[in-house]
Amino acid sequence: MLQEIEAVLIDLDGTIFKGKKLIPKADDAVAYLRSLGKRIAFVSNRGNLSQRMCHERLKEWRISVREEEIILSSTVTAEFLHVHYPFCKVWTLGDYGLQEELQRYHIQLARKPEEADFLVITLHETMTYDDFNLAFQAVQHGARIIATNADKTFPNENGNAIDVAGMIGAIEATTGRKVELILGKPSCFMVEAALRYLQVSPTKCLIIGDSIESDIRMGRMHGMKTALVLSGNAKRKLLDSLLEKERPDYIIDSIYDIVRLGEEAGQ
Amino acid sequence: MLQEIEAVLIDLDGTIFKGKKLIPKADDAVAYLRSLGKRIAFVSNRGNLSQRMCHERLKEWRISVREEEIILSSTVTAEFLHVHYPFCKVWTLGDYGLQEELQRYHIQLARKPEEADFLVITLHETMTYDDFNLAFQAVQHGARIIATNADKTFPNENGNAIDVAGMIGAIEATTGRKVELILGKPSCFMVEAALRYLQVSPTKCLIIGDSIESDIRMGRMHGMKTALVLSGNAKRKLLDSLLEKERPDYIIDSIYDIVRLGEEAGQ
Repeated sequence: MLQEIEAVLIDLDGTIFKGKKLIPKADDAVAYLRSLGKRIAFVSNRGNLSQRMCHERLKEWRISVREEEIILSSTVTAEFLHVHYPFCKVWTLGDYGLQEELQRYHIQLARKPEEADFLVITLHETMTYDDFNLAFQAVQHGARIIATNADKTFPNENGNAIDVAGMIGAIEATTGRKVELILGKPSCFMVEAALRYLQVSPTKCLIIGDSIESDIRMGRMHGMKTALVLSGNAKRKLLDSLLEKERPDYIIDSIYDIVRLGEEAGQ
Repeated sequence: MLQEIEAVLIDLDGTIFKGKKLIPKADDAVAYLRSLGKRIAFVSNRGNLSQRMCHERLKEWRISVREEEIILSSTVTAEFLHVHYPFCKVWTLGDYGLQEELQRYHIQLARKPEEADFLVITLHETMTYDDFNLAFQAVQHGARIIATNADKTFPNENGNAIDVAGMIGAIEATTGRKVELILGKPSCFMVEAALRYLQVSPTKCLIIGDSIESDIRMGRMHGMKTALVLSGNAKRKLLDSLLEKERPDYIIDSIYDIVRLGEEAGQ
């Protein structure tokens, strides 16, 4: 499984942690990949965290990780705006981490919704009616809409929770305007950011994640090896109905299985 | 108006033609810009024509134009897929021109909807229920959705007609999946394609078009001079309610007014 692999892209929610809990021995799995000398990028659709915030969270779980190894949809969104719309003003509907990430890329945050060229939507777990209304105002005053990702749900300690699609739905329904760009996995923006950091050909990469639609689809599209973990969104009983073209190369219960498989193979 | 300008970006529907009719003296206006030595790009959200088809149409109206000056949303969509997803297979919901443009960029067209990695949606004026259903099948089998543009209506001889938003609405409503990327104006993909061709700084460009939301917005966002024509979508009575940040630099009845204004200024 790992012999031909030089770099591993690792999803976070459902693969490394679930809500506030580390997935058992995910830390050991990462340490094992490091011991084999694999390059690593953590590639997550989380848009409500900044790289710094995510780094702190992973360090609390004693996962060995450098900030620049963390590629979030907030990171990629901020970088996209920095490159393509360097002078834009942005209003956000999302938790603070998105703002922090935008500022790291020198994106100007609008002081009032009316000023905004873009509304950027991400997960907003502390959202209020007022937050919705201010975002609505931004679009009413001409802001175009982009979203860090459009996941419908994410797995937390209590099962599934509403993800960014909920915030997008509210804004699209009330403004009659559409999101014009979604940057998260499986988009080329995420995979290209990861490959730029890793400096490895996609055929030498393994992607490990819990989502057929984002992780596996993105990996397959770019010629990577793919491993689906069953510790998050994907359930074993759904696998029978998978299309051939959607099938991952490996299906494992959790990321720690790569240690077991590696040791069985004598690595 | 034209003194500091080296290049002019010109919209098509509502600016050069309306349905099957040339807007009066639009051909003379283009000839006038040529006589002043301005570089020209025709930048249109039309995704159902290929560059070749659009070129033929413009030549019939005796507009002096080279194929490579024509930048359509079909062109930019094909180029985007070529650069970022070179091995993808595409199913289309749209008129034949989109397919021709995809093939010009060596994008593989899926033989069956089930094979497709992407469904690309554009205007489909000859659409049938079967076309909808095949596009639906593609998404049911895992195709991601992108759209050349998301305009709601376009002006033809009889007033407004349903544009791409209608096709998108049908597919999103029935599949529960969302369009993840819209490439047409005012996106950075269109303006960057035009500027790559023109090789001119945006501050030396004038954009002429009939849409506040696509033409004027795109021009303003990139620091171009902007001229709104009233020969298409935008109506004079709506201009009073325009926000300051949406206001074009010039408002003219039709593109031919640039000749009049230029001659008055002694150019």
